[in-house]
Amino acid sequence: MTPSASGRVRIVLDAMGTESAPAADVAGAAEAMADPQHGDAFELILVGHRERIEAELGKHPTLDRSRVRVEDAREVIGMGDEPAQAVRRMRDSSIVRGLEIHRAGQADAFVSAGNTGAVMTASTLILGRIGGISRPTIASLFPSATGFTVVADVGANVDTKPQHLAQFGIMASIYAELMLGDPRPTVGLLNVGEEPGKGENRAVEAFELMQAAPINFVGNVEGRDILKGTARVVVCDGFVGNIVLKFAESVPSLLRSRISGVAERGGIFTKLRLAAARGILRSVFREMDYQEYGGVPLLGVDGVSIIGHGGSTPRAIRGMILKAEEMVRRGVNQRIAEAIAAGQRTGDGG
Amino acid sequence: MTPSASGRVRIVLDAMGTESAPAADVAGAAEAMADPQHGDAFELILVGHRERIEAELGKHPTLDRSRVRVEDAREVIGMGDEPAQAVRRMRDSSIVRGLEIHRAGQADAFVSAGNTGAVMTASTLILGRIGGISRPTIASLFPSATGFTVVADVGANVDTKPQHLAQFGIMASIYAELMLGDPRPTVGLLNVGEEPGKGENRAVEAFELMQAAPINFVGNVEGRDILKGTARVVVCDGFVGNIVLKFAESVPSLLRSRISGVAERGGIFTKLRLAAARGILRSVFREMDYQEYGGVPLLGVDGVSIIGHGGSTPRAIRGMILKAEEMVRRGVNQRIAEAIAAGQRTGDGG
Repeated sequence: MTPSASGRVRIVLDAMGTESAPAADVAGAAEAMADPQHGDAFELILVGHRERIEAELGKHPTLDRSRVRVEDAREVIGMGDEPAQAVRRMRDSSIVRGLEIHRAGQADAFVSAGNTGAVMTASTLILGRIGGISRPTIASLFPSATGFTVVADVGANVDTKPQHLAQFGIMASIYAELMLGDPRPTVGLLNVGEEPGKGENRAVEAFELMQAAPINFVGNVEGRDILKGTARVVVCDGFVGNIVLKFAESVPSLLRSRISGVAERGGIFTKLRLAAARGILRSVFREMDYQEYGGVPLLGVDGVSIIGHGGSTPRAIRGMILKAEEMVRRGVNQRIAEAIAAGQRTGDGG
Repeated sequence: MTPSASGRVRIVLDAMGTESAPAADVAGAAEAMADPQHGDAFELILVGHRERIEAELGKHPTLDRSRVRVEDAREVIGMGDEPAQAVRRMRDSSIVRGLEIHRAGQADAFVSAGNTGAVMTASTLILGRIGGISRPTIASLFPSATGFTVVADVGANVDTKPQHLAQFGIMASIYAELMLGDPRPTVGLLNVGEEPGKGENRAVEAFELMQAAPINFVGNVEGRDILKGTARVVVCDGFVGNIVLKFAESVPSLLRSRISGVAERGGIFTKLRLAAARGILRSVFREMDYQEYGGVPLLGVDGVSIIGHGGSTPRAIRGMILKAEEMVRRGVNQRIAEAIAAGQRTGDGG
């Protein structure tokens, strides 16, 4: 977790991750390195088919090759592969090889837009968990009226137990504090009503544990509170969180099709008004788009692992790389380890 | 369930339901009766404080009083009241009295924008369940790229069992067929991945039961499929469904605030373009608004019970009344009873 002697954070990029790999992945690496704020703060290890990666690198002649290294890996875990099996069998895949480089201390972080389940499984298996953490969690940012809401878990875990939810709250709270700069993030438990005692049995039990946890717990919140920003952190089982995340991601597309529908049914003035508004709508939808946020962290593993969509654009890959650098520099994992250890001493951290 | 001798459907309206009761409720009744398509197809029984209802009726002088009757009920269950307790104790509340009128066969349907939990509880207690139904379910319409998606359950039940989910699928499928006119509705199980075997244990077991159920089951669907319209009916536990519903309802408000933000940051041309686009945006948001859909049915009770938001406008109340009339005329409950009975004979209906 310590930056290299150069002071640069060393980041492994799975260059075979996206659906248009390695082109989009390498282009994203080039974009990140060209970033005026961060470009010089990290170095990259691109993992995957060496020849194909080199060919893509050739398309970015201004890229500073002294800060990019290529590590060969001959296998690619596909989007449709069964995660656990693929990770076990494809030892020369870019995901497994990349995480082993991180595990060996030759890098500080790992970034991939590959098969989400495989990245999660391999990260947990290869990096291991932070001491005391039962289950790692994926935390995702949602836009809100007050900035961003961190929702955890959005898909790493189903059939969670109340104590897992309490740990998700601790991890996501630290993430919000260090990555969003919120000094005392409010934490809510996603539920079907605000009153204590509401909801499924798991939520009722988690409520009690979260009251005792070292977080700024504000009680139950509802589905509408994610976008309202009622609490900075919203905790839920991964089944619920994943469904809400995918639902949210599908909203811009429905709106676009409805707007086109209104335009088609309307006359020439409607069409003109709509054309005038397109720029504004585009910028609003862009704020809703996951790509701008650049992937999601797997919190609770003993390392930094950032996971992106298979459809990630170069811009999203850039965002993932910059996020990985920040997570390393801000010491998110150290803080999680401390909080969990303190909780185990006092018996309140689950 | 049979219309009265006049051929009109007899609908009880809880006139004390909305937050601005009885004004909005009575205004909604007047709007429904003024509807050129349906206005003459039903008669109304308004339940609540007689004097206050009469005062509101006085504000709608064109309303045909021969088709409106007022039944006095002196208590009102508040939005904050604990449902089960309130229903047990407040026997002279508009909800309990109204449902008793329906139960006694003096009306064919009940409509309320009051305390949702209380309406659910009282409907189940007073009307009873359709034979063989374990748990009634609330089915809600979501707008989709292909029309509407019916999602059940959106809040009547938490900690459901797989067999409950299978029954929700049967009931919501019949609802979609008769109320949306879809001759063979596709039914999906809400999950975190498409492959069979995905997701929480409950979903894995429900998958098997739904394959055997008398529905057009198309397998697992994900959060994004609700708005895409991949399946006409989407089945889930009420905890998940309620969270997704409330999340969806909060989207227009976030978009409005983001659009205002873009407008404020922009110059005069941005402001002009935005002003030009407002009409279009309004019409798109309206399509997303629950009020247009007019409440949600509680399926599986032995009667017709339509539940609306406390914040319902007269237009939403109108929608609820018209929906109740349609549900009675189309015989949704008879079809549910037949399907469940047939399933019990063959052992495939849960």
